[in-house]
Amino acid sequence: MSKKVTAALCVIGDEILSGRTQDKNIAYIATFLEEIGISLAEVRIVPDEFDEIIPAVNRLRAKYDYLFTTGGIGPTHDDITAEAIAKAFQVSLDQNEAAYAILSEHYGEDAFTDARKRMTRIPHGGLLIKNPVSLAPGFQMDNVFTLAGVPKIMQSMLEDVRHRLKGGRKIMTKDLTLKIGESSLFECLTDLNNRFESVSIGSYPFYGEGRFAVQVVMRSTIDSDLEKCFITLMNYVTEHSIPVLEQN
Amino acid sequence: MSKKVTAALCVIGDEILSGRTQDKNIAYIATFLEEIGISLAEVRIVPDEFDEIIPAVNRLRAKYDYLFTTGGIGPTHDDITAEAIAKAFQVSLDQNEAAYAILSEHYGEDAFTDARKRMTRIPHGGLLIKNPVSLAPGFQMDNVFTLAGVPKIMQSMLEDVRHRLKGGRKIMTKDLTLKIGESSLFECLTDLNNRFESVSIGSYPFYGEGRFAVQVVMRSTIDSDLEKCFITLMNYVTEHSIPVLEQN
Repeated sequence: MSKKVTAALCVIGDEILSGRTQDKNIAYIATFLEEIGISLAEVRIVPDEFDEIIPAVNRLRAKYDYLFTTGGIGPTHDDITAEAIAKAFQVSLDQNEAAYAILSEHYGEDAFTDARKRMTRIPHGGLLIKNPVSLAPGFQMDNVFTLAGVPKIMQSMLEDVRHRLKGGRKIMTKDLTLKIGESSLFECLTDLNNRFESVSIGSYPFYGEGRFAVQVVMRSTIDSDLEKCFITLMNYVTEHSIPVLEQN
Repeated sequence: MSKKVTAALCVIGDEILSGRTQDKNIAYIATFLEEIGISLAEVRIVPDEFDEIIPAVNRLRAKYDYLFTTGGIGPTHDDITAEAIAKAFQVSLDQNEAAYAILSEHYGEDAFTDARKRMTRIPHGGLLIKNPVSLAPGFQMDNVFTLAGVPKIMQSMLEDVRHRLKGGRKIMTKDLTLKIGESSLFECLTDLNNRFESVSIGSYPFYGEGRFAVQVVMRSTIDSDLEKCFITLMNYVTEHSIPVLEQN
């Protein structure tokens, strides 16, 4: 059985930390990775500051199999991600010929301003990541993938790197939403958790229609364990005639 | 001029990392804090694991003025936040008399199950945080505020701790959304950034109506600087007849 493959995400952006922008990338990236058998193990959101980005990047790229960064690769003064990654890897930040060719053709000589030329600066040794939306590329350094922060662009870049990622065993999930207070499931879930080591079980209470309900989520890389665990829960639910709101 | 007051947020929850749940708390907390002059400086999202929660909590509570945690204080096996915080502070996890009184009265003797009693375990010395929604309290240890993950409950807990938080100078913001590519503003924004040290300037491109636009956000604790900086940008926008989409 191949080992679990892990990834971290470093979101670079004052706009998320200020609350001005509601993040739309974390859940998307988590789902994208889960589909190819990579589990997102940690996320950090840091401001547009070298002293915060560089240590976070170096810590996360060492600890996990992959690191994705989003944000800060645009043309303006607050876009310092490329320079921060170069510093983290202790390499120079060069004008990348391929990136230059793409953007100079796209903008034409007159519109290819110094600001736009900044977007062709890639850490030395970086492998470009295609951006079909606005063309300015992201880049890969070793196990670190630097993507744009704009969701539409970030998503297109993820597609371009999909084939560069090696997933582990696919994580399968099952969930069951019950119209019952979470605490009523304590003994049942504790028992399942002890009996099915390979299955990670989460229970997520939420408030709807004036009362609490709970979603139970089971995740495992071993299909048969997941099935057994889920069936055991279903039997419990039936025995105690707990109303089922949803099942996947 | 009082110093900048900072906070970190540690989101504890596999459901966010799996992409199953779209976070709704980060932006809310960021905005709540900004209103009282506290800036959210870092966010970490970690799984429901002691080895991940404890070091993150100890690192963040030491580095920032305040730390908020969300998630993992419910009644089930995967709710380990209270125990993790107790371990982080190296104190015992006791049955809290006040919490016990609140929940035993709420549920009544029969319904006050062992699972629900788990929610009365508070790290030794912890100060309770009221939960008007479902009653199970959060708690404060020193500069660490442990809140529920369910947005409705988390928000009510924030209100309860509002008076316990000392903000710094209020951060004021202005923003301007322009129908122009971000890179066209490079020189102007770089110039503003150099001239107005106290103002942090962010530019956030987005894609709408088939073309790119950019929101420029200025933040400062010094009103007069913010005003001057904003007016300078407005003059530039007028001179270059750049279409303004929105202004706040």
